[in-house]
Order: sequence, then structure tokens, then C-alpha cells
Amino acid sequence: MTEAPASPVRAGLNHTAAATPSRAPIRIAPSILSADFGRLGAEVQAIDDAGADYIHVDVMDGHYVPNLTIGPMVVKALKPWSKKVFDVHLMIAPVDPYIAAFVEAGADIVTVHAEAGPHLHRTVQLVKSLGAKVGVSLNPSTPPEVLDYVLPDLDLVLVMSVNPGFGGQSFIPSQLDKIRILRARIDATGRDIDLEVDGGVTPETAALVAAAGADVLVAGSAAFKGGAAAYADNIARLRAGADRGRQGA
Amino acid sequence: MTEAPASPVRAGLNHTAAATPSRAPIRIAPSILSADFGRLGAEVQAIDDAGADYIHVDVMDGHYVPNLTIGPMVVKALKPWSKKVFDVHLMIAPVDPYIAAFVEAGADIVTVHAEAGPHLHRTVQLVKSLGAKVGVSLNPSTPPEVLDYVLPDLDLVLVMSVNPGFGGQSFIPSQLDKIRILRARIDATGRDIDLEVDGGVTPETAALVAAAGADVLVAGSAAFKGGAAAYADNIARLRAGADRGRQGA
Amino acid sequence: MTEAPASPVRAGLNHTAAATPSRAPIRIAPSILSADFGRLGAEVQAIDDAGADYIHVDVMDGHYVPNLTIGPMVVKALKPWSKKVFDVHLMIAPVDPYIAAFVEAGADIVTVHAEAGPHLHRTVQLVKSLGAKVGVSLNPSTPPEVLDYVLPDLDLVLVMSVNPGFGGQSFIPSQLDKIRILRARIDATGRDIDLEVDGGVTPETAALVAAAGADVLVAGSAAFKGGAAAYADNIARLRAGADRGRQGA
Amino acid sequence: MTEAPASPVRAGLNHTAAATPSRAPIRIAPSILSADFGRLGAEVQAIDDAGADYIHVDVMDGHYVPNLTIGPMVVKALKPWSKKVFDVHLMIAPVDPYIAAFVEAGADIVTVHAEAGPHLHRTVQLVKSLGAKVGVSLNPSTPPEVLDYVLPDLDLVLVMSVNPGFGGQSFIPSQLDKIRILRARIDATGRDIDLEVDGGVTPETAALVAAAGADVLVAGSAAFKGGAAAYADNIARLRAGADRGRQGA
Amino acid sequence: MTEAPASPVRAGLNHTAAATPSRAPIRIAPSILSADFGRLGAEVQAIDDAGADYIHVDVMDGHYVPNLTIGPMVVKALKPWSKKVFDVHLMIAPVDPYIAAFVEAGADIVTVHAEAGPHLHRTVQLVKSLGAKVGVSLNPSTPPEVLDYVLPDLDLVLVMSVNPGFGGQSFIPSQLDKIRILRARIDATGRDIDLEVDGGVTPETAALVAAAGADVLVAGSAAFKGGAAAYADNIARLRAGADRGRQGA
Amino acid sequence: MTEAPASPVRAGLNHTAAATPSRAPIRIAPSILSADFGRLGAEVQAIDDAGADYIHVDVMDGHYVPNLTIGPMVVKALKPWSKKVFDVHLMIAPVDPYIAAFVEAGADIVTVHAEAGPHLHRTVQLVKSLGAKVGVSLNPSTPPEVLDYVLPDLDLVLVMSVNPGFGGQSFIPSQLDKIRILRARIDATGRDIDLEVDGGVTPETAALVAAAGADVLVAGSAAFKGGAAAYADNIARLRAGADRGRQGA
Repeated sequence: MTEAPASPVRAGLNHTAAATPSRAPIRIAPSILSADFGRLGAEVQAIDDAGADYIHVDVMDGHYVPNLTIGPMVVKALKPWSKKVFDVHLMIAPVDPYIAAFVEAGADIVTVHAEAGPHLHRTVQLVKSLGAKVGVSLNPSTPPEVLDYVLPDLDLVLVMSVNPGFGGQSFIPSQLDKIRILRARIDATGRDIDLEVDGGVTPETAALVAAAGADVLVAGSAAFKGGAAAYADNIARLRAGADRGRQGA
Repeated sequence: MTEAPASPVRAGLNHTAAATPSRAPIRIAPSILSADFGRLGAEVQAIDDAGADYIHVDVMDGHYVPNLTIGPMVVKALKPWSKKVFDVHLMIAPVDPYIAAFVEAGADIVTVHAEAGPHLHRTVQLVKSLGAKVGVSLNPSTPPEVLDYVLPDLDLVLVMSVNPGFGGQSFIPSQLDKIRILRARIDATGRDIDLEVDGGVTPETAALVAAAGADVLVAGSAAFKGGAAAYADNIARLRAGADRGRQGA
Repeated sequence: MTEAPASPVRAGLNHTAAATPSRAPIRIAPSILSADFGRLGAEVQAIDDAGADYIHVDVMDGHYVPNLTIGPMVVKALKPWSKKVFDVHLMIAPVDPYIAAFVEAGADIVTVHAEAGPHLHRTVQLVKSLGAKVGVSLNPSTPPEVLDYVLPDLDLVLVMSVNPGFGGQSFIPSQLDKIRILRARIDATGRDIDLEVDGGVTPETAALVAAAGADVLVAGSAAFKGGAAAYADNIARLRAGADRGRQGA
Repeated sequence: MTEAPASPVRAGLNHTAAATPSRAPIRIAPSILSADFGRLGAEVQAIDDAGADYIHVDVMDGHYVPNLTIGPMVVKALKPWSKKVFDVHLMIAPVDPYIAAFVEAGADIVTVHAEAGPHLHRTVQLVKSLGAKVGVSLNPSTPPEVLDYVLPDLDLVLVMSVNPGFGGQSFIPSQLDKIRILRARIDATGRDIDLEVDGGVTPETAALVAAAGADVLVAGSAAFKGGAAAYADNIARLRAGADRGRQGA
Repeated sequence: MTEAPASPVRAGLNHTAAATPSRAPIRIAPSILSADFGRLGAEVQAIDDAGADYIHVDVMDGHYVPNLTIGPMVVKALKPWSKKVFDVHLMIAPVDPYIAAFVEAGADIVTVHAEAGPHLHRTVQLVKSLGAKVGVSLNPSTPPEVLDYVLPDLDLVLVMSVNPGFGGQSFIPSQLDKIRILRARIDATGRDIDLEVDGGVTPETAALVAAAGADVLVAGSAAFKGGAAAYADNIARLRAGADRGRQGA
Repeated sequence: MTEAPASPVRAGLNHTAAATPSRAPIRIAPSILSADFGRLGAEVQAIDDAGADYIHVDVMDGHYVPNLTIGPMVVKALKPWSKKVFDVHLMIAPVDPYIAAFVEAGADIVTVHAEAGPHLHRTVQLVKSLGAKVGVSLNPSTPPEVLDYVLPDLDLVLVMSVNPGFGGQSFIPSQLDKIRILRARIDATGRDIDLEVDGGVTPETAALVAAAGADVLVAGSAAFKGGAAAYADNIARLRAGADRGRQGA
């Protein structure tokens, strides 16, 4: 190793860890974007009972992404229906004016987009100052280097494996590389940072992303299909897929 | 009267109609912004059973107004819960890219804001071309003259009697004049155009706005307070207030 | 006359002129939006030869209107092909940064949109300071009152009788009232201001708008249909329609 | 008079007041845009000593207007130098996020632009809720009708008699009509609302605007020219001009 | 090779290919921005006859770049004049709403800017879903890493060697490094992806960029100077320059 | 080392310089954001007398950053008060329309933000064409790679060690890595480029940033605290801290 300056974050890429860090368990984060919006409270309760680890909420403003979904009042109304982690993904730009409303509504994790403004570090500070955990999400085309100077401050990194906006899209395989790169960089920080993947997650792709290093899997229709009776089985299959992937990795 | 050119719309202000047009009945349009977002389907059904005429949906994008509420997927999910008119108020700018999604989701009336773009006439055409009824809403500070060249094409005019964005605000009395002016201009068209009021509507203010000429009343907490058992009574009181106002006018 | 304050502009509405002002001749302004973009120079020459009074150029930026057409370099290239008035309609917002480029390219009249910014008076000053004539255009939904404080400074008012963006749309009849109102207000200024109409102009609607007071008629396909051999006849028919309308008025 | 509905605001246009309201005294509001920015505190003190009634502060954000001047920290620094009314004119859009900072900095009157957003009534409410007086400014091309539904809530109306952005421009005479119209509408409210004029004010134009009904005159170079020794005389001449205009009216 | 995760794209930088890939032939893409806009069809035909490989079209919207050129209607009008590849470079942001119009107009390749929005992958998907080839362009200051996660999906990469907006600028030498880096990354994909360069291309700089790995050269005045009689010679000289550069590389 | 193409800029990271370049002296750049805005001229003179090397001016537009400070007229008024370098940091987006005004006002160095637009290279060209020196600033979250293709053209790189907008924030330690990386890349260019740091600079952090390679230190309250009598001592302590850091590095 020379004296050449190097970011400790990227340094994670260049060494083989002496010991594999003990992995956090796989967590399944069903996205209520695929739930029945007429009965969201009951859906949240059912998916919680079925074994969901996080309740994933996709907030879209119709400007940053070409769809408009739900806002802070809905999060607030759903909060009493589950004690699980409310994992709120804000597809809003500019996002700072809405952070406080979502934290007050009950968001445990607030995830913002790296592309949504020039002041990402400020947004990260803001979320943390309000007492919530903070995540940053990357669009499929966004390179992981945009996180170089905020990664150690984060609680979660969200890799979008489809373009945000709509459910039901197919998994983009090129994101597996990004997941692997981010896994290494996260491990290099020595901190406990969730690596979450969202988009086209099925039991099959769950294996791929878990093998690549993801530990939180967002699932839409794969979690909510078949009615409430099927939710536990849906989640179990996603978890099994992820575990298979992890063991094979 | 000279030959000076005058808009037939504004001409409504200057003559006393030979015969008062027979008034459309008062309709109550409860806004689901005040319903329980965890059980929206049941809320819609309950308010329908309680006598609501329209199901009023407040769509906010977090850009045109400083709040973000619900989008087309929620409207679509609620549509099967009621056969009443879905009266969808879009607080979105620019709004044209979202019109089709709301019509497909089941909006019977699509109301846009006069202030939301320089091409209001195009938006009106667009809504109509998709088979829905079209309304235009005016913010409290907006003068009614902005409707001079679209009024005859409309199915509904919505006077905001609070600033759009949040429930629970107080009625702004200066809007009564605007309601009176619009009543006269609508009557002058000879067409069947709803005159709707939204903001701070209670049985007391219902009387005022009905006296001024409104015939559709949006109500938030005044409709949804006290739980589902109270809804019928809430609506009845709003209707009674409005009827009182109308008779006294 | 009382002491009640009144705008001299609007005052035009309230009096019957002692003597009808002698009308400027009808001018036909073919829009090259309907010409063959592969041979624009020849098209401009042909339509000039066919009797066009103005060469009307529709500039759209894909932002203010949902279409993108041609910019200043095209105007500059066409200028040598005709000595007629280049009548350039800028559908751009914000427009100020592009005014100079169009004047340098050869625009004789630069028309901007009243809705395109909060500083209309400044834009008018800017065009005049560069030595060009200045027009202001109104969208179909825009009331004529937005011109109250700039009308006397203008050389042209353009009433859009379709929503700007595309050729081939149908004339919106409600604009006839606006034309009549603007005719009166222009006459009240005592100044020589063109009253131009653009959208759905055919020999039939030409009669209507001329009757209402327009004196410059933009025509797209009605001017350019049938190939160059038909242009003179096309223009003659538009002019005849307008003259008929004027005499009947 | 028929039963035709009419805004009480506009009604002011149509009647001759039985008794002329006693006029508020003329106030002179020197704009520090023409002061020496290297010694602003001393300039404020000197102009106060010279008889200024209001300290007028022109805040420009480089977006709403094509110039960038000074922000809330400057206002705060100047506040201790004078006990006169700090009359702060915000040329910012959107303006709501900055209102609180200016009130906290010491603005006594906060004036916003009618054209700066679609929610003028909300902005007016916001300023008042923070305990400051509220004004609304109109660009030269803006008709006074945009104030129809907020006028009674205001403490000040500011007529721009040049396009906002730079000092040293010439007075636009067409604004005299707007001043007269607004004078009548303000009087009709029966409320104490300043009618302020800004742009090209000299002793000569002061007479014109005072005759038309203005009672607060912003002056830039006319107040600050000639160095501090001349300020008292400058202000006296402006006041004399205005008084002359008022007596002649 | 260690287990350290690495993008297959960037890996191209780190290995020496066992065998040099056979290079695609140099193609010359004259930009009609330097043609005569009064006779664009004939210009396209003449440059095609003169040996152009692609017809390069520079679309500027006056917002993403400070110039406004031509839109989809012009492309459509030119399409019948040549059977060569229409290579359309969209300097528009946001660009998604205009993709379909250009494909329908006849664009064979649609190139968008990496900097023009946060959803580059979606735009790439959109172009491909409409049946056109897709390119991505990089401004002079943009590092090639922004392509890391879309490169294998592309048909063309366009390196801007001047700042987009105007013809006649000088070649920026620092872009040669970017061309070399992208050449290696493209080769590493094993896919057939054009590497195009636009800006200041002359026979001399053609040699430099071809040596660096470019295989499609956009030329403006270097192609269109001297009138149609010179076009064949112009293109031949550009091609000769590029071939020289390639052989020397 | 293979023949793999590599940017000469980044190559700076990978070699140990044969000889340490002789370092430019530490310069202290007090930011007048912490001065008394009521007496800015005297403050500038006092800080100059106290040994400031640069007069640092923070220009904020209320849009790119959530604060609005001072514009070109203030810079112009301060210029006569000091002959030191006016080092003007523009937190404006888009910034190009304001470059000329600041150069004319007396800015010796104009620093813009890398995140403020997609055409950074054009902005750099623009500043240089007007005869000023040019800097580029990076927000805390921005990776240094955004400078890869403009670095050799620059006179200054500004690393923000707090989020721009307000004084009084704490130094963000992760920026030390960025400073080290940029130090190496600047050295690799062989050119004389200032490496400036702004945010939370005290004598203690001055040592850290100087050790990491910074040579120009912006200081707000650390320079201006304690009144003018303390300025020389404040600056001396900052310089001593930086020198200590440099010797220990």
C-alpha cells in the first residue's frame, strides 16, 4: 500500500476481509403498493402477521417519478396497525420539506433518492436530527460512487432493481454488480447498514440478490398475491429463496 | 345598452333573469381526506350509505400544494365500494399528464385548478375527450374572471373557501361574493353546471354558501366526525343547513 | 363621466365611437408550420408570390407548449426568401433570453405570450428596444384584461382560437367574443395595432373573425394545402371570406 | 342598481363617496437599493435622520427578478440602526419559505408579489400569523383585479411603476390609472391600507402619483443622491412634490 | 482475480484484450445544423450522395441548452430525402415526453443526454421499446462512469467534444481521454456499440478522435462548407483523417 | 502497468511523486458572511488590515441553497475597501446568467458549484473568457470525480466541509479524504490550483485540512469573532493551526 490518498469507503473494494462479517438475517419488506388500498390497515396487519419484517411504503409525488401514490397522512393512519419497522421510501424531489411530516407520521426509516437534489448530505443530517433512521436509494443507472461521502452516515442503502414508479416490472440483472459493490463498501465501514433491494423481487431473484449481498428485500406482488391467506407462504418462499442464495454465495 | 361588445358570460351579471332557474338539489360531497386512510373502502361505503351524493377525493402532489395525499391507484381501489359520483379534485401542476390515469381509475368528475397552467382550455378539452365530466377550481385569491372563456364548457366550478392543502381550516367569508358572482354567470350560460364549495363547510357555513348559490358542498370533518354511526346525521345536518340557507336567500 | 377611476383601455367598451375608424386592410399570414420543412425557402417564396402579407412563424420550445418546432437559425435562413413581414410567434417561456436571437434573425414582429411570465411589460420593452414590432398572444382561456396595462404599447394582439401546439385543430367559437372586446379596446387607444387570429382559420371562420374585428388572419393548412399551385387561390379564398365577414358586420 | 351580485371591492369603482375619506399623510420610503452597501447601517441612520418615514428594502432572488440583492441577514443587521418602519419588498418566488426569516429579521411590513404564486391568500395569512403587516405588489402589466379577494386583508398595496429588478428606470405613466383604481377600491374597503408606489419617483412624478391617490412613495436615487448632507433636502422635495400633487387633485 | 466485486464494465479497463476486436469502419455523420435550413431536403440528399453514413440531427429545446433548433416535424419532412441512418441527438430535458414523436418521425437512432434526468435507464428502455436504437451523450464535464450501469444496453455513446448548443466551436482536447476510456469499456462489453464524437471535428481532429477509439464522427461546417459540390471532398477528407488516426493508433 | 487507458487526472492517485511539489503558502479567506452587514466596507478593510489574504464572499440565491445573502451590487460596493483578492463563491443555479455581473463588480475569482448545472465546462469557459479566475465547489456529498474533465482548467477547487447555506456549522470530517484525493489530483496536473476549504474551520480543524492538503482556508466566525481588535489574532491563530497541520503531515 502506498501513501496515495484513498477513500476508506472505496478501500473496501480492494482487500479481502480477514474474516467474513457475520451477516444480518434476511428481512422481507412487503411493499403496500401491491396491497388493497381500500383496506390498507387490514393489509398491513395481515402482512405483519404473515411474517413481514418491515412495512415498506412507496411514496411517489408525480414529479420525481411518473406516478403519484400516498403521502404522510396515509402513513400516519397505518402506523397503529403494525409494530413492525415502517420503511418509507420517498420518491419526492425536492424532498427536504416533507421529511418532518413523514417522521411525525411514524416512519422509522426514511429513504431518499441520491439523485433528488444537490444537498444529499444535508438531507441525511436532517432525517437523523429528527430521530429516524436514514436510507439512500439509487436508481438503476446511478453508480454507487454517489454514496462515497455519505455511506458511513447511513442506516440503509436501497438499490432499485427496476425504475421507480410502478409495480410489476422485471428485475434488471445489471444491478447485481451494484449490490456486490455496495456490500463490500458497507462491510468496509464496519457499520450496521441495511442493503435493501426493490424491484422485480421473486423467490428466484431473491436468491440472486441475497447471493450478491442484499439483506432486506422489498417485494410487491410476490408478497401480496393470492390474498391474505397466501401472505405467510409468499413471505416464506421469498425468505427461502434469499437464504438459498446466501448459502450458495 | 349599447352595441359595445360584451362577453355573454359576464353579461349574466347585468340582467335580472326573467325567471329564476329551477335550482338543482343540494348535494353533499364528503371528502375522504377526513376519513380513516386505513379503512378507506369501508369509509367510502359508510358515507355512501349515510347519504353522500358525491365521493370527493382530494389529490395533492406536494408541489402545487404543500401536502401529498393519494393518487390514481387509491381511486381505483375505492371505486368498487360505491356507485356514487367520484368527484376527484386534482391539486397537481402541471396536471395534463395525470388526467388519463384518474379517468381510468374511475373518476366521474375531474376538477383541475385554473392557476395550474397556462393552457386551461386544453386541459378542459382533454378531460372531456376522455369521457369524464370536467370541473375547474379557483383558489381563494383567484378572481372568477379566469373562467370567462371556459365556463360554458364546464360541468362544475369549485370555489375553494380555504387555501388548498390541509383539512380543518376556517371558512374564508370573502368567497361568498365569488360564489354569488359565479352563480349568476353559470345561470347566464343556461347550462347545468355544478357550483361546488370546499373548505370550512359546517351546517352554519353551509347555509351561507347555499344562500350565495352553491349547490354542491364538500365537507371533511363535518361529514366524517364521530365515527360511521354519525355520518348520516352529519350529512343530514349539512343538508339541512344548506336548505335553510337556500330558502332564506 | 364621473370621477370614478377607469382605465382608458377599458373605457373603450363603454362608448360608441362617434365615427367608425377606417379599418386596416385584411392581411393573410400563412403559417409555415403547414409548409414542407424540407423546402422551406421555396415554400416561403411561393406563398409570398401567392399573395401572403405576412410570413407567420410558429416557434415552439417543447416546454411552454407540448411541441418543438423551429428556432432562430431557421428564421435567419428563410429571411432572404421573402421581403414580406416576418411575423414570429414565440411559444417559449421564459422568453426574454431568446428575443434578441429572433430579432437578429430577421423577425419584424415578435409576439410573446401573456401567460409566459410575470414580467410582460419588461418583455414588451425589450422587444421594442431592439427595434422590432411587438405582439402579445392570448391562449383561449386567457381573458383580455391581462392586456389592460400594455395594450397601448403593442403593435399586435394575437388571439389564439385553438390551443397552441399543433396544426389542424378546430376553431374555438368562444374566441369571437374576445376578438370583439379587443377590437373595441384597440380602437379606443386610437393606435394602429394589428388584431391577429390564429387557429382553425378557413374561408368560413375567416368571415366570422373578420366580422368580429380581426384584421390579420393566420392560416396553416388552409393556406398551404394543395401544393404551391393552389396557394394563390387558397389565400384569395381566405381574403374573400374575411372581406365578406367584414362587410356583413 | 340591480340585484346583480357584485364584489364589494369593485363596487368602490361605481359610486362617488359621500365624503372624501381623510387622507393619511404622505410617507417617503427611501430604498436602500440606492444607498452605499459598504456603509448600510450609517446610510439607514442618515436617511432616518433626514426624515424618512419607512426604510424600504428591496429583496431580489435572481429568479423572480433578474437581479440578486440582499437577504434576511442584512435586514437583521440594519434593524438596530433605525426605529422607523422596515418596509421589506420581497421579489422572491416561491416566497413562503422565506417569510419567517424576514419577520424574525425585523421586517415590520412584508410585501410579496401577486404574480409570485398561485396561493396569494395563503401567503397573506402566513405573514399576518407571524405578526407582521402584509403588502402585495403588482408588476406594471398586472391588472388590479388580482387583488379583488385579498384587498381587505392587506395593510399595503405596492404599485410597481417600473419593472422590478434595477434602480434608475423611468416612471411608466400607465400606472397612474392603476393607482387611481386602487385608491378607489381601498377607500371602498373603509380600511387603512397604504397605497405605495415604487419606480422612477422624483419630485415631479411624486406629484402625479400623489394626485392619483398614492400615499407612500418609494424613492431610490431621488432620496440617496448627493451624499448624506443632501438627504433631508431630497426627502423634503419629494414630500413637497407629493403634497403639491395631492392638493391639485 | 480476487473475490473483490467489480463491475464487468469497468473491468474492461484493467485487462489487455487477448485479441484486438475488429473495428467497425469509420462512419461520417454530417450535422444538418450546418446545412442551409431553407433547403434542408436537398441538403440531406446532397450530403447522402456525397457519402455521408449517418444524417445527424441536432435537436435543441432552448432549455437544456441555450439554443432552439428543430423538432420532430422537421425530421419527418427530411426522412424521405435519404435512406441513410437518421441519427437524432436530443438536447431536451426532460426528454421522455418527446421520444415517441422522434421515433415516429423516422429517427433510427435516438440519443439522449446522461445529464438530462435522474431516470436514464428508463429512457433507454423507452427508446428500445419503441423499436429505435438508443444512444447516450455525455457533456464535456461529465465523467464516463455515469454510463456504468447502462452501457451494455446502448447502441451508441456520444462524446461531446464541445459544449452543446452552437456550431463552430473548437475541439476540447481533454475529451480524448474520455474517448479512450469509453473505447475500452465498450470493447469489454463485447457488444457492437458506436462511439461517436461531436464538436470541432475537422480532418485534423478526426485523426485524434479516431486514434482514441471513436468510430462515428459528427461534422458540421467541416462537412457542409463550400457548397454541395464540395461535400464529397469534405467527407472524404474527414474519412481520410480518421483512417490516418486509426492506423497510427 | 498495462496499456489500459487512464485519465491523467486520476493517474495522480496511483503514483508517489518523485519530489514533493513546493507548496503554496497557506492563505486565509475570511467570509464576510460573519461580518457586520451594517458596516461591511469597514469590516472588509479591517480584515484586510488584520492579514486576510482573500476576501471571501458567499452569494446565496435562496434557490440553490436555502438562504439568500448578497448580490453583485454589494460586491461592487465593497471592492474599493480592499485590494486583496475578491474570492466570490456563487451558490446560484443556474449560474451562467450572473457570471458577468460578478466579474464586473470586481470578483477576482468566481467559484461555481459542480452540482449547479449540466454544463459545468461551459461555465468554466465563460468565467475565463471574462478575465476572472475560476473555481469549482463540491458539496459534502459530491465525489471528486465530477472534476475529472475540468480540473486542469481551474484556478481553484473549493471543498465544502459543511452543507452550504448557513454559518456556524460543524466541520464534516469525511471531507478530509476528499481533500487528500484532490490534493493528489491537483499535484498531478502540475498546475497552480488553489485547494480551498469552507465550513467549520477553526485553528484545530485548520490543522486537519492543511495536513490533508488544503492551502486556502475560509473562516467565518473564527475570523470575525471578538470585534475588529481581535481579527489579526484570529487570523494568526488560523494560520498557525494550518502551519502546524502542514508540518505534521
